[in-house]
Amino acid sequence: LITADLLIEGIHFNLKWTSLDSLGHKSLAVNLSDIAAMGGQPAYAILSLGIPAKFDGDKIAEFYRGFNRLAKRCGVALVGGDTNVAESLIISVCLIGNPPAQPVRRSGARVGDDIYVTGTLGDAALGLALLRKQLVGAKSAAAVRPLARLHRPMPRLAIGAALARWKLSTAMIDISDGLLQDLGHICRASDTGAIIWQQRLPLSRAYHALAGEMATSLALNGGEDYELLFCARPHQRARIETLSASRRVGIRRIGRCVMAAQGITVRDAHDAPIAIDVRGHDHFKK
Amino acid sequence: LITADLLIEGIHFNLKWTSLDSLGHKSLAVNLSDIAAMGGQPAYAILSLGIPAKFDGDKIAEFYRGFNRLAKRCGVALVGGDTNVAESLIISVCLIGNPPAQPVRRSGARVGDDIYVTGTLGDAALGLALLRKQLVGAKSAAAVRPLARLHRPMPRLAIGAALARWKLSTAMIDISDGLLQDLGHICRASDTGAIIWQQRLPLSRAYHALAGEMATSLALNGGEDYELLFCARPHQRARIETLSASRRVGIRRIGRCVMAAQGITVRDAHDAPIAIDVRGHDHFKK
Repeated sequence: LITADLLIEGIHFNLKWTSLDSLGHKSLAVNLSDIAAMGGQPAYAILSLGIPAKFDGDKIAEFYRGFNRLAKRCGVALVGGDTNVAESLIISVCLIGNPPAQPVRRSGARVGDDIYVTGTLGDAALGLALLRKQLVGAKSAAAVRPLARLHRPMPRLAIGAALARWKLSTAMIDISDGLLQDLGHICRASDTGAIIWQQRLPLSRAYHALAGEMATSLALNGGEDYELLFCARPHQRARIETLSASRRVGIRRIGRCVMAAQGITVRDAHDAPIAIDVRGHDHFKK
Repeated sequence: LITADLLIEGIHFNLKWTSLDSLGHKSLAVNLSDIAAMGGQPAYAILSLGIPAKFDGDKIAEFYRGFNRLAKRCGVALVGGDTNVAESLIISVCLIGNPPAQPVRRSGARVGDDIYVTGTLGDAALGLALLRKQLVGAKSAAAVRPLARLHRPMPRLAIGAALARWKLSTAMIDISDGLLQDLGHICRASDTGAIIWQQRLPLSRAYHALAGEMATSLALNGGEDYELLFCARPHQRARIETLSASRRVGIRRIGRCVMAAQGITVRDAHDAPIAIDVRGHDHFKK
């Protein structure tokens, strides 16, 4: 398994808002999350940096500290890379992992499958909205968790590997672009549609406290949660609940795969479709 | 074997001087050259691009054309990557190759070993000097080859693999930073010094015609030639000559490994040391 991510200052991150330690963590985490979504075990990382001339050694060391701490925790060896000067900070990570006996792809979902997500949704987008002052409360105690979710996402490696090993999931992806956009990737690859029940979306306490008028919009469309979104046959429900309990990671059933012609709909408590706007995160869209 | 290179517009290349097709070629070639220097066979490439919003699809297609043509020629499969918008063009390539039975390292040179280079030296630096108008003749017929060497280097994969397979080389590196700087890497890793005979440096016809006052300075210090520099035991001379003849690639014996305390010297036709300035290419030096 091979995955790569290119992070560019001013496009993907703002050094006013994140520490370099967190940035080191996150630049590896986003790649680990890709490996998690295939049920793999990460093994080797290659890190190339473009570093502004004004950066001093301490800053670089801080970046490596964050990167190496997460690498060690996840059993990843940093085996190479390249370092250059650049106008702004550029981080290119390539990660190589070992696939499970049967890798989980995006294309295996079937009509009738349940749809699940791990953890809670929308926290990273909530953190970003707080920083951008689109929401108030950035300095409140409730903001700590959303900001941590934004800056230091924890890839779901153990859950991803367990789902693959026990053949519980038919299709899987990590939520980097937003629930609806990433669900769209699964539906297109699997040739299905999907129904999502709005009231089933797993939202954190901080989300309830701070999201206000954004209601479920951040949970549906916000990127960078790095939770796993997966599909499973209905007869696996008990085993998935057991997995959730044993690993102490929330796994919430949020919807169902339907025929492709039905598209993707979000339903309210009365099962009525609500208007959705699949924005997600696409750098090339205006 | 894993190698990575990050190329940044304005630092490593200037789009006024190079076509995007050539840039696609070169961004893969510099990584292939690293694999060649270990005697390996390239297998998989991961390409991440940061693309300015003003770029149109034709430009990107042109870049991929150059990249894919060389990939096909060298048996490399492009297996992944990432694409983003960026302020300037950013190219991050990670290349994975299969090592030979006994990879060639930088640390195997011994006192008494011969020192060789493939091809000719200084042509890429000559091309760059012509473009920068540090030398006249950029539009002359003689400039075609130096400019091609600069923009479309050909990695020495076949020679590198043959040297490794037949255990002819004790240490090897590709010349990316300049002969003396890369020789310094071998000498430090192997704990040797080196004598280079100035009149043995392989110079192209174009170099003789255009280098003028630069004399051998570009051949000694100019970067980006992507030729192989290697050491070998003296009893291998006949086999190396046979390899050179059978592959139709010039392989010139240019020096000898000596004790580390003697350092690296360049000698003139009378065996007198000449003043050298090991500049090479170091982005972080001023």
